[in-house]
Formats: sequence, structure tokens, C-alpha cells
Amino acid sequence: MHRKMRLLSTNVLDMMKSKAFDGFLSGACLRKADKGALVFTPESGENAVFIVVSGRLRVFLSYEGREFTLAILEQGDIFSTHTRAMIEAMSHTEIMLMNTKDFREKLVAHPEISMAIVGILGDVLNSSLDAIESLVFQDVRQRLAQILIDEAEERGEKVPNGISVSLDLSTENIGLLVGASRQTTSQLINEFIRLDILEKSENRSFVIKNINALKALSRP
Amino acid sequence: MHRKMRLLSTNVLDMMKSKAFDGFLSGACLRKADKGALVFTPESGENAVFIVVSGRLRVFLSYEGREFTLAILEQGDIFSTHTRAMIEAMSHTEIMLMNTKDFREKLVAHPEISMAIVGILGDVLNSSLDAIESLVFQDVRQRLAQILIDEAEERGEKVPNGISVSLDLSTENIGLLVGASRQTTSQLINEFIRLDILEKSENRSFVIKNINALKALSRP
Repeated sequence: MHRKMRLLSTNVLDMMKSKAFDGFLSGACLRKADKGALVFTPESGENAVFIVVSGRLRVFLSYEGREFTLAILEQGDIFSTHTRAMIEAMSHTEIMLMNTKDFREKLVAHPEISMAIVGILGDVLNSSLDAIESLVFQDVRQRLAQILIDEAEERGEKVPNGISVSLDLSTENIGLLVGASRQTTSQLINEFIRLDILEKSENRSFVIKNINALKALSRP
Repeated sequence: MHRKMRLLSTNVLDMMKSKAFDGFLSGACLRKADKGALVFTPESGENAVFIVVSGRLRVFLSYEGREFTLAILEQGDIFSTHTRAMIEAMSHTEIMLMNTKDFREKLVAHPEISMAIVGILGDVLNSSLDAIESLVFQDVRQRLAQILIDEAEERGEKVPNGISVSLDLSTENIGLLVGASRQTTSQLINEFIRLDILEKSENRSFVIKNINALKALSRP
């Protein structure tokens, strides 16, 4: 079972430094967005592929005021505007944008790259299956435990009293990743703290003091 | 909002009749499976891409005896064994199998095809986002209404008293697509029948007598 806040393990910006990508990004344009700006919506009709150059974006589904965050995009992530998801800048953000038609033409001209893109799309698909599995089999408490475990395993840092995990998200934004309100999320975090499993740390990060207890809590 | 039983709108077998695909399937092998056979599991470690030649397969997630069906694959559908999903033959089935390494090499040699594959992966991703959206915002009753609406719109046939929809699934299998037990699914179907919205018909099909009432029931 997994519930990750990131979609990809590949940094596409790094990948694009290789010679195979020479000229691939010509014709792409840089777009900036301020914190809180809705960068794309399904209604915008814009059909483009973009790579995050700096900042963070939130990919989310929305229905009549309710929201669910699929993933957080960070530097080097690639995504398409042509899905049913909305995309919002969580900070000042720069993205490199290429329309889908140009992107497809470039792929035909650079077949090695299309293999990489097929691999990336496979990653995104697997992350979506993770989200589905977690939504079907785990409740909110289990899902919150899971996202902390997955972050610890992907990007956690050993500290004297456990593993430090820097989500750098508000309580509300953590809740939107697990399908819970801000209040419920806050109650669950306090419960994990009371159980001596978790500790709040500086700069919106946590220390997981007992990863095994957290894993036990994540099991349906 | 959507909850479709099919992943794709493209028939890959038909697509492969075009000249661009000459020789593409050389090296692929045909595999047969009997009804009920588990064709692939994440544990099998088999890394292949397959196309359904005949029969139907169920793509599902499983956790300690609980299951959720992501989609039903039919003739002309393509899928990968390299996901966290399990794949089971729902009838006598024939699939054309190619290992992922060969498949990637063929893509590099046939760049036009990789564009088609990127498009197909995009379809699969959008279907997954549909499933996530439906799981987050709809309850089981709404999701059951939704899958009947989507099937009516994709493949329904006009009949004198409404729209005929041939799911050709057992009650249990309908339940696995919406995340409900056989009993709950059966109760909901009977409720829709009592409300004069739905009628059972021959060969495991339904007639939707009042699509607008069903749409109202699907809304969260």
C-alpha cells in the first residue's frame, strides 16, 4: 500500500541535460505564476505539457467546493494540462510549457525520448493506482500514517530521535492529500503525537519517533 | 464525474492493421487462459505488454481478501503486467504478449506508434483519475448509478422503453467495480427497479427507463 505526495521519481530537468534532448525544449515558453494562482483548469482548454522549473504546484480534483489533492509537483516534474485535474501554484512558480502538438512532433523526431516519456507515464499511472488502492482499502487515519511512512522512505532524514520528514504543507493541505478536513487531520496528528509516534518539528516538518508503530497504524 | 468499466476508447487490434504497424507484433506470443485463471500478479515479476485478442479480463486491486475492480479489458485493449494490479480471465481468453524490453525497442524503431502509445497511456491515466474522483466524491449508490450512465452513453442501445445496457457482469462483479458487496449491490439494483428507473433484461443486461432520474441519483 502506498500514498505518495510525489508522482514521479525521475527529475525530467536533469534527464533533459543529456545530449539526446538537444533542441527538445526549443519552442517551449516559460510561464510564471504567483502563490495561490490557478494555473490550469480542465475548462481552460489549453492542451500542453509542462515541466516545473521552480516552486511547487498542487494537482487536485474538485467537485462543488470539495477538493482532493492527487499530488504535489516539484522541480523537475512533468505533467499534462489535458486531464480532468486542476493545477494550482502553492508558491511562486516557474514552469516550462510546450503545446501537446509540438511535444508529439518532437517525440517522433527523438524516439529515445519517447521511451523515457512512456516510462514517466507509467510512473504517473502507478501513482494513480496507489491512490486508488489507498482510497479503497485505507481509512483517513491509515492514509495519513501511510503518507508519512512513504515520505520517510523516499526523502526522510535520520535524526537522533527518529526520521525527519519535511512535508512543508499546511494541516489543510495534508488533509487534502488524505481526503480529510483540516480539523480531522489536526486531531489525527495530535493523536499520533500523544501516542509518542510523531513529533512536530521546525519549518512544517515532523519527526517520526516510532516508524514500526506508524506502520501498524497504517494497516487496514 | 465518470466511472467507466472500460479503460480505453481505442481498439489497438484495429489500429495495428495500419501499415505503420507492419512487423510490430513479430516476436509477440499468444497465450490462452481459462475462465477464472489469474493471468498476472504483481508478484509474478513478468514484465510484459499485452493486447486482448478474445475474451474478457478483470484488472483488480486486492488487499487481504478484499478486492476492487479497476476495469474490464476486452478485445483490442492493451495493458501492462508491470503495475500493482492483478489480472484475471473472466472467460476463456486469448492475449498477445510481448516483453517490455522488445516492446520498447519496437517503439524506438516505429516512432509514429509511440505517439499512439502515449495517447493510450493518457487514456488509461484519465480513466484512473475518473476512478479516483468517483471514489472521493461519490458514495456506492451514486457510483452504481454513474457506471450505468457511462455505459449507456458509451455503448447503450435505444429500445422502446429506454436504453439497453449490456454489462454482462454478475452482481458480485458489478459490486467490485463500485466498491460494494454483492448484497449491497443487489439491494441498490432492486431499489433502482422499485423507483422505476431500471429494469432487468435478458443476458445480464439492464434497461435504463429513466436516465434523468438516474443522473439525479448519481450526483453527490
